[in-house]
Amino acid sequence: MTPTVAEQAELALLLEVATTPKPGNVDRRRDHDDLRFEHFLAGAVGASDGLRALADPDGPPIGVAFEHAVEGMSDQSGGNTQFGGLLLLAPLVRAAALGEVTPERATRIAEGTGVEDAVGFYRAFEYVDVAVADPPEEMDDLDVRRGSDAVPAIRERNLSLYAIMERSTATDGIAREWTGGFERTFAAAEAIEDRDGPITDRAAATFLDMLADEPDTFVAINHGQRTAEDLRDRAAAARDGDRDPDALADDLVEEGINPGTTADLLAGGLFVALVRGVDV
Amino acid sequence: MTPTVAEQAELALLLEVATTPKPGNVDRRRDHDDLRFEHFLAGAVGASDGLRALADPDGPPIGVAFEHAVEGMSDQSGGNTQFGGLLLLAPLVRAAALGEVTPERATRIAEGTGVEDAVGFYRAFEYVDVAVADPPEEMDDLDVRRGSDAVPAIRERNLSLYAIMERSTATDGIAREWTGGFERTFAAAEAIEDRDGPITDRAAATFLDMLADEPDTFVAINHGQRTAEDLRDRAAAARDGDRDPDALADDLVEEGINPGTTADLLAGGLFVALVRGVDV
Repeated sequence: MTPTVAEQAELALLLEVATTPKPGNVDRRRDHDDLRFEHFLAGAVGASDGLRALADPDGPPIGVAFEHAVEGMSDQSGGNTQFGGLLLLAPLVRAAALGEVTPERATRIAEGTGVEDAVGFYRAFEYVDVAVADPPEEMDDLDVRRGSDAVPAIRERNLSLYAIMERSTATDGIAREWTGGFERTFAAAEAIEDRDGPITDRAAATFLDMLADEPDTFVAINHGQRTAEDLRDRAAAARDGDRDPDALADDLVEEGINPGTTADLLAGGLFVALVRGVDV
Repeated sequence: MTPTVAEQAELALLLEVATTPKPGNVDRRRDHDDLRFEHFLAGAVGASDGLRALADPDGPPIGVAFEHAVEGMSDQSGGNTQFGGLLLLAPLVRAAALGEVTPERATRIAEGTGVEDAVGFYRAFEYVDVAVADPPEEMDDLDVRRGSDAVPAIRERNLSLYAIMERSTATDGIAREWTGGFERTFAAAEAIEDRDGPITDRAAATFLDMLADEPDTFVAINHGQRTAEDLRDRAAAARDGDRDPDALADDLVEEGINPGTTADLLAGGLFVALVRGVDV
């Protein structure tokens, strides 16, 4: 029995959190104080119905299905577990359901979103607290933290979800994927495919490379750009063998530094790799 | 959004494997050589469609839905991950779908199985190698290892799945649950409910109690009754504080002793606890 696209998406979320070491993130061997491994398990299972809606070629607009996935994800006591991962998966899952998952197809789906997708996206913020950057002053009425209260402004301006993402690339690594050909997601998938060994070991090596490549935007929002750049350098030292990745993981958990966007990108990469046939 | 019964069953399987230490089993911190954590993640996700069939009050006979769940579970390279857990969950999930999950309702469902359930059960052995005891000589044509080849004998004798379970209580702890009011499953659920702390910590303490109470039948089949009794005594020492449970877990993995039936019972207990409202 071949797994469905929705099952592969759910499994990607589970494999992401199981991957260890994944410095700074909750992983198979590490918890944060109030955000624990089992919250991610429940988040992934809770998102499954929304993932099925995303994987339905005749399903609702992806932003609406995303809202449904986030609603289910949030039914656990840890708070935000996979909001960013689901946002990244949304166009990828729909692309896989419509045929092949390619950067081009996912981009067409992202570009094809409309105002109803944007409304779903904003409503999704009602279910969990998500750390985001302050918007520019002229966009204050579009602050995602307004949740449903921003919907009239969204409708009035007739903004698509893609347009929202275009406005967020300065501060959000997921928005950069949506509007930049899903470059890092597909690079992660290729890196996972090219490596050998258990899939979570391949994913751990891939994660460290990604963390060493670019500052994590979630860390930048929560701790400032300087901390994010410092983390990138520490990850590079671990990647280059000058530091033990497990020790770095322990340190970052202690410091409360959680590069969540890089973990979201890894979940996207795992999904693409699974759809393309990587075995578990 | 309340999780569905099928989602709670899938989450129970995931929480079971995440629970640590769970001496001898794959858990969040330990793998066996060819049976790793990620195989259980994929097994749980793969079983989800079969779990939905079990959770459908108008769904197929539970033995048929069980076969479907095992088929999906087996789509990973680790082999048998949750066969016993799914067999235990089958009547419990259907009971929860029909109303409340109680020993009485689950028992009525088990007793109400027919020959089609038995056929599904035998067919499920086609998908994975499951360690089972040799049947008595006069039951040789009913050896589950015959898989679909045993179906004509099943039909000729018009045996129900419950009747098969009744014949297996000497060697199989899951069969004892089916035919004995699901006693240890509901005791595990109560123990999980009564404890405090993260659900996987409660489950770990409950697992150790169960392992210290009775010899694991899966260990007895694979390593003999004496090893199973010895394991029970070693677990009792850990439960009583005379031995470190984590050290016992490391030792057992090294010895290749995997008390899988007790893990299956824990999955059943976790499911009942989740349905009754224990939070994650």
